Amino acid sequence: MNRQKLIEEIRSKNSFLCIGLDVDKNKIPSHLLSEQDPVFAFNKAIIDATHHLAIAYKPNTAFYEAYGLEGWKTLERTINYLNENYPEIFTIADAKRGDIGNTSSRYAEAFFKDLNFDSVTVAPYMGSDSIEPFLAFENKFAIMLALTSNKGGLDFQVIEDGSGEALYERVLKTSLGWANSDRLMYVVGATRPEYFERIRRIVPDHFLLVPGVGAQGGSLKEVCQYGLNSDVGLLINSSRGIIYASQEKDFAAKSAEKAEELQKEMAVILSGAGLSS
Amino acid sequence: MNRQKLIEEIRSKNSFLCIGLDVDKNKIPSHLLSEQDPVFAFNKAIIDATHHLAIAYKPNTAFYEAYGLEGWKTLERTINYLNENYPEIFTIADAKRGDIGNTSSRYAEAFFKDLNFDSVTVAPYMGSDSIEPFLAFENKFAIMLALTSNKGGLDFQVIEDGSGEALYERVLKTSLGWANSDRLMYVVGATRPEYFERIRRIVPDHFLLVPGVGAQGGSLKEVCQYGLNSDVGLLINSSRGIIYASQEKDFAAKSAEKAEELQKEMAVILSGAGLSS
Repeated sequence: MNRQKLIEEIRSKNSFLCIGLDVDKNKIPSHLLSEQDPVFAFNKAIIDATHHLAIAYKPNTAFYEAYGLEGWKTLERTINYLNENYPEIFTIADAKRGDIGNTSSRYAEAFFKDLNFDSVTVAPYMGSDSIEPFLAFENKFAIMLALTSNKGGLDFQVIEDGSGEALYERVLKTSLGWANSDRLMYVVGATRPEYFERIRRIVPDHFLLVPGVGAQGGSLKEVCQYGLNSDVGLLINSSRGIIYASQEKDFAAKSAEKAEELQKEMAVILSGAGLSS
Repeated sequence: MNRQKLIEEIRSKNSFLCIGLDVDKNKIPSHLLSEQDPVFAFNKAIIDATHHLAIAYKPNTAFYEAYGLEGWKTLERTINYLNENYPEIFTIADAKRGDIGNTSSRYAEAFFKDLNFDSVTVAPYMGSDSIEPFLAFENKFAIMLALTSNKGGLDFQVIEDGSGEALYERVLKTSLGWANSDRLMYVVGATRPEYFERIRRIVPDHFLLVPGVGAQGGSLKEVCQYGLNSDVGLLINSSRGIIYASQEKDFAAKSAEKAEELQKEMAVILSGAGLSS
């Protein structure tokens, strides 16, 4: 998918909601456990019930790898289902990959060619040649960790060099010099709203993928106050808060209710910012 | 596997060689392509020919994921073959994983429980809670990136804070405060021998996994000069230099020759350091 289509989709749905498919078999309604592929049955129901409210889905690869071959098959079924039935949806493999150049090339093939995701999350520690292979694909995006929402995010990411520049700022600035840096997006946690202003000074135009609203306690309003740009520029992710809204047979309808709550908040924010369709 | 058994294995083989199984279908001998699982057939032949010279094998997950489900099956076959036939071998899933706590727990399950590797490589950018779930397993190890061998390794890892401490040093020091930090090892590239002295000041006892000897140009002797400790403390990886020694039917024998060259160099170094069996 290209950037323009993503923006059009956001405008037409008045939503910049991404739904995280971090699916744990122990947390899905028990009546699904008799299905041949319970996690896929769960994902399919959630997607069918929420696709008009969300513009992106983000399966987290760890939750699939934990089930071995079966899990990888479920991941494949899920991305295929999305691509076949909802081609307008932006898909994110939340995989946090990154390795030396020849190896990152193989990861890029895995997620962009074999599975055909629109984007994949990547980790910056190994620098330029660990990310550039992901940027070599037209109409695909690498979403690089900048400032993450978790406790340990403060261990290294905010360390300042002698001139007062924090590591996450250096990561952002340096990445702008890489080949095809317009194919980058960045992960910035919703639990760090005080940083969005500094981040937008460095990357005013890029999309930011923002986890941490909901279960992790981040505020949508605060994030938008500094994070929105004229193309909206935000993908707000919620996982557990939406997909585990109910453990009963009504789980899909309940997840749609939760998604709609967020989408309505987003519509109000977009309208207030003059960004409505 | 526990640390003591790994050390015993090193002593008994006079080797601290790790062989990287970064297997690209386009680079294996063409006669294998008619096999049902060509990459597994290749791995099996390499392992059978070299297991008496090496103490560890390190499949790189990217090369398996690039082939989708088939690739994951090959990875599973490879680790099962190692565990069933050579239980004395230390196994490393070179996966460079790392995510928020609940997600890293799933990666740890994937590699330690489902696949039953002895260790997995992890990336430090997301800090404590992204690594600690990997340290919760007895007789398993997380091997964390510290200073990597690739060009981009210098983009962020050597940035110094106001006091002159480089990021990789902070990563090492901080990690020593995490729960079960004795279950950590660290990745330090062989192309950076000048840094080993500084690294050994911070982590004198931990094992270091050292890629970059061979194709990437690192020197075994220089690495050992500052990297060896009284338990040897080094796992030196070579991938392409060994596994692609020949593209003919004699590929396994040729890979054993290359492995033996390195093992003999290692035996001389161990003897010189008074660490021989």
